[in-house]
Amino acid sequence: MKSAEIISNIRKSFPKSSRWKNIEDDGASFELGDSSIELGTDFFAKKLVFTTDAFIVDPIFFPGGDIGKIAICGTINDLAVMGAKPIGISLSLVIEEGFSAEDLKKIMQSIGAVSKKTGVPVVTGDTKVTEKGKIDKIAITTAGVGLAQKIIPNSGAKAGDLIISSGDLGEHAVTLLAQRFNYQTKIRSDCQPLNKELETVGKFLNACKDPTRGGLAANLNEIADKSKVKIILEEKSLPYKKEVVAVTELLGLDKFSLASEGRFIASVSEKNIDKVIKILRKFNREAGVIGKVDKGRGVFVRTELGSLRKIESPRGKLIPRIC
Amino acid sequence: MKSAEIISNIRKSFPKSSRWKNIEDDGASFELGDSSIELGTDFFAKKLVFTTDAFIVDPIFFPGGDIGKIAICGTINDLAVMGAKPIGISLSLVIEEGFSAEDLKKIMQSIGAVSKKTGVPVVTGDTKVTEKGKIDKIAITTAGVGLAQKIIPNSGAKAGDLIISSGDLGEHAVTLLAQRFNYQTKIRSDCQPLNKELETVGKFLNACKDPTRGGLAANLNEIADKSKVKIILEEKSLPYKKEVVAVTELLGLDKFSLASEGRFIASVSEKNIDKVIKILRKFNREAGVIGKVDKGRGVFVRTELGSLRKIESPRGKLIPRIC
Repeated sequence: MKSAEIISNIRKSFPKSSRWKNIEDDGASFELGDSSIELGTDFFAKKLVFTTDAFIVDPIFFPGGDIGKIAICGTINDLAVMGAKPIGISLSLVIEEGFSAEDLKKIMQSIGAVSKKTGVPVVTGDTKVTEKGKIDKIAITTAGVGLAQKIIPNSGAKAGDLIISSGDLGEHAVTLLAQRFNYQTKIRSDCQPLNKELETVGKFLNACKDPTRGGLAANLNEIADKSKVKIILEEKSLPYKKEVVAVTELLGLDKFSLASEGRFIASVSEKNIDKVIKILRKFNREAGVIGKVDKGRGVFVRTELGSLRKIESPRGKLIPRIC
Repeated sequence: MKSAEIISNIRKSFPKSSRWKNIEDDGASFELGDSSIELGTDFFAKKLVFTTDAFIVDPIFFPGGDIGKIAICGTINDLAVMGAKPIGISLSLVIEEGFSAEDLKKIMQSIGAVSKKTGVPVVTGDTKVTEKGKIDKIAITTAGVGLAQKIIPNSGAKAGDLIISSGDLGEHAVTLLAQRFNYQTKIRSDCQPLNKELETVGKFLNACKDPTRGGLAANLNEIADKSKVKIILEEKSLPYKKEVVAVTELLGLDKFSLASEGRFIASVSEKNIDKVIKILRKFNREAGVIGKVDKGRGVFVRTELGSLRKIESPRGKLIPRIC
């Protein structure tokens, strides 16, 4: 059995608390009960959202980002896709003795730059240094706390909704793979924080996820399963750049499972779709509709010839150390 | 410059938020403003507390605990010493490929047992597996969220207060050292959660810390510095077991910097001291007064001959991978 399965199985026997919901989601939400927390004008939170991720990306510096940037963006985005305003980030580092001081400074500066850009402070942290050879350079774990008026659940997609992507997909994974195989490409990681976009359009989204590990395949299957709906993507609308598809084919990979680190996918009702796309295009001109939601189960892609092909959640080993 | 200093220096340039206080403390606290969160009868929280720690303890199993137990206890305790009721824990694991499934199960069961005993649920998590040789077995980062009516600050000790320890000190460090040096001893790690004790006596404490890394020396100096007071320990009242002192002397270490993982030290006003000790003795018969607070600066120990010796915060390299 794989480690993740062992952990997930044993966690099922752990004590539960009725105040915490969505514990199988990108983060967990704590019900504030009768009280609400005021956060700026007109924002009264009813839920506290809490999430964490470990980052062991290899290489630690890549076009478009580094392990520091991805660590803070990853946690901000996990809060944002749940409809929460991130209010604070924790930063835990495990560093190999003798790790370059210059590299450590660059990583910390990246984290500071995202904190500044997003307005989300890093409020607590820990640093452990281990002997040479006991860790590969550096591992970072971030956790984050956010406040939400309403959670955007993975289970909220409805037949009749449209599926959108906030931009081109798969560029993060292809950037990392190109680095490892010394393949020349102009593609850069899409790694970026999504909280500003989601604070603007979040209220119009029925379901939302960031397609990191497992890409569209894993994340749309999760939405389809939890929402008990069928999702049909349109091949011709799929937001993969030509070069992304080329690298993917060269390496014999499935583009549907490529990770992005600065994109979200969402299910939006038809009445809100024009508004949502209009707002998102201000952030990213590639935002657009990529499919629709229907009655039924599973995720499919309609090829340009009109046939339907099932998209399974990736089962095998995913590309390691992509984040 | 050491990694921790580089990180601490760069963090000074990170954006601040006026809603977050105590960011140099065991955790950071977020002011809930005019609202309060109800948590059971008579508990209306005014602050949210957030903390994180990484754990790379070696060996991962030791008498009295393992890396899982220490990871959940460490974070629960960091919340508890700030006066917060822990409400949720996040669990992030980085695991070496091929790590023993049996060991992973034991570690997860330890975490579950502490969660059950304390009533603090593990609500969110992440697992990353890395190639063999890229990490030494397993690293765990926990983060925790708690709610507090009032923060127990490190800066609250007052001249006239008494300093207490919730039990014998240094057993965790000595257990780990004995394991590494194959030294036979009956000492077991003191690793345990402190939230129940602190929920009972927290309101009577003026300052509180758990003497983990750097032991009494680091943690009392932090209280003395932040509170702008002098602390005088009584040698004859110091709660180090004979065997702890023996191992410490054998290895040429300073007992004052030995880490404990299930004890707290606190500054208590004279009027509350009997009440506090009486309650704590129900949890641990070794709880007692170890010194007093005076006007002045610094931490001192009064030897049995009556002379005062200054206890400096440890400056050199601390014993690695003790937690």
